[in-house]
This record gives sequence, C-alpha cells and structure tokens, in this order.
Amino acid sequence: MSAARMLTGDRPTGRLHLGHYVGSIANRVRLHQRYESFFIIADLHMLTTRNTREDISRVAGNAREMVLDILAAGVEPDRATFYLQSAVPEVGDLNTLFQNLVTVPRLERVPSLKEMARDAGKEEMPYGLLGYPVLQAADILCVRAGVVPVGRDNAPHVEVTREVARRFNHLYGEVLPVPEMIHAETPVLVGTDGRAKMSKSLGNAIALSDEPAVVRRKVLGMYTDPKRVRADVPGTVEGNPVFAYHDVFNPDRAEVDELKERYRAGRVGDVEVKERLAVALNRFLDPMRERRARFAAERGLVDQLIADGTERTRQEVRQTLAEVRRAMGLTAAYQQIRRRAERSRRNADAPATAGTGGA
Amino acid sequence: MSAARMLTGDRPTGRLHLGHYVGSIANRVRLHQRYESFFIIADLHMLTTRNTREDISRVAGNAREMVLDILAAGVEPDRATFYLQSAVPEVGDLNTLFQNLVTVPRLERVPSLKEMARDAGKEEMPYGLLGYPVLQAADILCVRAGVVPVGRDNAPHVEVTREVARRFNHLYGEVLPVPEMIHAETPVLVGTDGRAKMSKSLGNAIALSDEPAVVRRKVLGMYTDPKRVRADVPGTVEGNPVFAYHDVFNPDRAEVDELKERYRAGRVGDVEVKERLAVALNRFLDPMRERRARFAAERGLVDQLIADGTERTRQEVRQTLAEVRRAMGLTAAYQQIRRRAERSRRNADAPATAGTGGA
Repeated sequence: MSAARMLTGDRPTGRLHLGHYVGSIANRVRLHQRYESFFIIADLHMLTTRNTREDISRVAGNAREMVLDILAAGVEPDRATFYLQSAVPEVGDLNTLFQNLVTVPRLERVPSLKEMARDAGKEEMPYGLLGYPVLQAADILCVRAGVVPVGRDNAPHVEVTREVARRFNHLYGEVLPVPEMIHAETPVLVGTDGRAKMSKSLGNAIALSDEPAVVRRKVLGMYTDPKRVRADVPGTVEGNPVFAYHDVFNPDRAEVDELKERYRAGRVGDVEVKERLAVALNRFLDPMRERRARFAAERGLVDQLIADGTERTRQEVRQTLAEVRRAMGLTAAYQQIRRRAERSRRNADAPATAGTGGA
Repeated sequence: MSAARMLTGDRPTGRLHLGHYVGSIANRVRLHQRYESFFIIADLHMLTTRNTREDISRVAGNAREMVLDILAAGVEPDRATFYLQSAVPEVGDLNTLFQNLVTVPRLERVPSLKEMARDAGKEEMPYGLLGYPVLQAADILCVRAGVVPVGRDNAPHVEVTREVARRFNHLYGEVLPVPEMIHAETPVLVGTDGRAKMSKSLGNAIALSDEPAVVRRKVLGMYTDPKRVRADVPGTVEGNPVFAYHDVFNPDRAEVDELKERYRAGRVGDVEVKERLAVALNRFLDPMRERRARFAAERGLVDQLIADGTERTRQEVRQTLAEVRRAMGLTAAYQQIRRRAERSRRNADAPATAGTGGA
C-alpha cells in the first residue's frame, strides 16, 4: 500500500534558496516522479523554536511562497499533495500516543537537536524541540509513507521514526510501515559570504525567487579569495565560493575551466568571474522564474493546492489514527463503555420488565 | 467562568483503596460540593508507564470500577463529569501545542517523575513520562479548570500547568485561567504490611470495595509490633499500623484510647485489637458498600455517566482548543489559505472576465 508513498517538506520560515535547492529540492523534484508525494508545510515544527504570534502570522504567506518555490523548482502540482501540518490536528493526537515509545536518552542522542536549540538562541532545550523526531514520526507515519528522502541532518531523525514504527508494531501488531530512507547526496552550499552554509538568517542566501538584478548584485558582493587585492595577483580556486557556485550551477564546463586557469594565473578580475556566474545563475533560475510566474498568475492555485491537500491529508491521517487506536485497544475501551451505555438507555426506554431497577 | 471549576482524577489502573481515600478521595468528596467537578479517567497518563495491549484491555473495566468507587465514596453523580481521557483526542492536539512552552530541564526538576519511572521498572525515562506534567496541563486547561486539589506529589506537576498557562497568556494573550491549587492535607496511609505506603502493586492494600470478610482477613494479617511475641508483652503503639488505622478509621476515640493503654501495658492481644479494627473499618466502609451496590444495580449507569461526561468534555475541549488556536494565530493561518482558495474557485466558476487567466 505505502511503499510508493513519500513524505518530505520544510518549515515555513521563508523563501527557499539555492542551498535548499542543492541540498534537497533538486532531489525531491526527481523523486516525486517515482513516488506519490506528500509535502508537509511543517509549521508545528516551526513552533519548537519560533512560536511568537509574529512568527505564526507569517505562516500563511511563507507557506504560499514555499509551495510556489517548490512548484517553480519543477514539482508538478498534480503529482504532489501539499498540506499545512497545524491544520491536521489529528497529528497532535498521534504525537501524544507515540511519545511513550521513545526514551529521553534516545532523543538526547539525536545530534542536530542541540544545534537547533543553540541556533534558536534557546539556553534550555524546549520539551517540544527534544520531541521533534517524535512529531516527525507522527508526520511520516500518519500518511503511512514508505520512503523518506534524507540527508546528513535528518537521517538520525528518520531513524527515530523507524524505531517508533517498529516499537508500535511490536507492541500492538503490524500496523505501521517502517519507512525506508532514501539517502541522497545532499551537498551543502556555502553562503555568498563564504560561511559554511547558506542560510536566510545569516543573510548570505540567494533565493530561488530573487530577480535577476538581485542575483547579480548578490553575486558581485560575494566573498572570494581575500588575498587577491588586484586582478593580476594569482588567486585560489579551492574553497572560493564563487568557483564553488560555478561548479554547481554553470553547465558550461569549458568556461568554468578557462576561468579557473586564468584566475590561478592572475589573468582575470574577480568582477568578470562574478559577472559570468551571475549570467550562469540567472540562466539556471530562469526556467524556475517562468514556472513561478505562471503558477503565481493562476490566482488562488497555490491556496487551492494547500487547502485540497490538507483536506486529503486529514482523511489519510484519520484513517491511520483509527487503525492506531484500534490496534492499541483504545477504540475498544471506549466502545465497550459507549455500547453498554446505549444498551442500558434503550432498556430504560423500553417497557419495564421484571428485574430492571428504577430511576 | 472557570474559578468554580475543578479537575481531578486518577489513572485507571485498578480499584481504589483506603490509601486513595485518605490521600485524595475524601478531599474530593468535600470539594465536589463546592466546585463544578471534572473527574478525568487518565488512561493516556497510564500509557506513560503501562502501554501494553494487556494494560489497555483493562482500561474499560478499571474505569468502571474506579467511577463506582468514587460514587461509593460519596461523590454525587449529578455533580460530577467523568470522562475517559483517550476518548477526547483533542487533548493530544493541545498537548502538542503546549510542549513548546516548557523546557526539558524544567521538567527534569519535577521530583516525582524519576520515581514513577523507577517504580515502573523503566531504566530510561520515556519521553512521554517526562512530559507527564505537560499532558496534565492540557487536561487541566482543556476544561479551563480554575482549581486543582493537590497533595505532596502532584503540586509540582500543577506548578508546571500554571507556568504553561502564564507562558501561553504572555505569548498569545489572556486566554487560559491560571489554576489555583487547593493544598489539601493528604496523609499517607501505611500499608497493611507496615510499609510506608498502601499500594495495590505492593499487595498491602484494602480496597474500598473489599467484602467485610476480606477486610477482616487482611486486618488479621496486618503487621504489628514485631517484638510483641505474646499478649502480655508490653507493645508499642507509635508506628504500629494497626493503631494508625484505628486513629484514622475508628470514630470511637474512647475505645481506641483504651486499646492503646492496654496494648502498652501488655493487657490485650493483637487479635482483639485487630478484631476491633476490622469492625471499625467495616462500619466505615458499610455506607460505601451500600452506595456502590445501589449504583452498580442501576445497569449501565456508570457507563452512561462516562459516555455522557466524555461527550460533554469533548465539547468543552473543542471550545478551548478553538480559542487556543485562534489566540496563537493558527486558525487565521489556515483560514487565509482556505478563503483565498474558495474565492478563486468561485471566480473560476463565474463567467470569465477580462484579466482572469486560463487554467
């Protein structure tokens, strides 16, 4: 049933950038052709580190832009189910039931959580953040996803999902699929400032939706070899973010090789190398801009996708939740009580018979 | 609205015993006359330490017996709303939203949780058990209880509820009442074996529903002064569980004083002291037995109470959840998306007008 279903997604914290594309979106564009795909807009996960009213007030707008970015990147709208996590409240129920299947020390061994807390400026780990992988288990298992694409950071999270599924099945019978991880190459793109990772909050990102002029400006402002004070000084290509981007986004290998050679020999200025990168990047982004503009022009399309996807996901989750509760025996517990209550009410309405008490 | 509402309850792990009565039920019987009372049958809390199918299969039966015990103790059915926690799935949603309002170190400072883990034979703290006070916050706040009776063990839990409510109100506006604790004297009754606490799992409990002969047998088997090998050896009253019970349950003070005097002087046998206690205890329990029998005879009454109470509680919780989601801004987030989707769908159904793009 579910081997062909995939769950993937992001927190709706802003527009997607080249780092997201390289790290995961490109992979999802490929994979969504092979699997029935659920794209979660993970606003409940956002709440683990950002939960002011202001943060939440941006969810709808960010969700819309994020879905547009994903469609722009090449995901076909009729091959994907987009949904807003917080609008599927049944996930919270599943989360609560799964919390007894994992221990605190196990979650403390998930490496990325401490980093997330630190990045969010939290001195103490929020309880919900420690449980991030449990809520993810609820996300993945609630649509009975059989595959989850993973990179360096989230593989340990999905390992928790697999443990939750196995533990559940061990305790209550084979109900939940143990999802397979699709280990993708997820190269990390350096920021335009040369820092290890492109990130909107670091201000070193190029958004997939940036206008050509913005892209050019950001590229011209990029960090390069700091020792190279003039164009005739030989420069270093390795670890130079401008060349790192050329390697990833410029399909004209001959041009890239020529630029590297001239750069090393001190025969090309930084500006030319950057101008060529800006051209290559804009060429790379042009088809996305076109798709983005096309989807954005269909007024309400994205909202319809999210609304329909959310309703569809709710149906799926309700079904999963019903199976989970049935397997655990919770359904039977309440049914027993309700049936007895109804039976006695019917008897009370019926004409009194011998042996039936009063009141 | 809520100052007059009280939440209290127990995990449905078995019949209530004298220790429960002395520690909390007696207090609730008094309080339920003053407050609109919700009695939670906390099976989701049971799952934090006992979550096998076998454990869950006993929930319905235990819930029924527990409610009968509470009614037997003197709670009037028309002054109390009994509900089965797991049959109010919205609590899980609230729990998930509240998890970001408390930190892990804060929960690790709640003293009783480690004890609970140890008692349950858990080598590692289950994540859900660490979050026990968060789920309790969801229980208390979901019915907007203004008061919670607390004893030694659960006051630190309810302190977490107060913090959750305050933190929520600080972030999202004044929505949740910060419940007051009613600090009750909650004497701890020693077990029949003299161990510090009466507990069913220790096998040293006298159930409220035990038959007179069973009570007598258990009392005759009670631990007394071990140094007293014969009736004419002077005995020690202090710390002697038989006299502790006499002090609590025997209203005939003169008889108790006389027995103590003769015991200290070596002028009464253990058997006589115990026989007198058995009589006193059975006199104490007789009205409960009568009420229990009366309620049990009304076939389906208890099931109706639980079923009706659960439905009623669900209505309350849905209302709270709607307010919580509205205050956080989650309702608006999804509504924005849904309204735009609907508007564009209506426009698409309407005759095409200039400027409206095609499909």
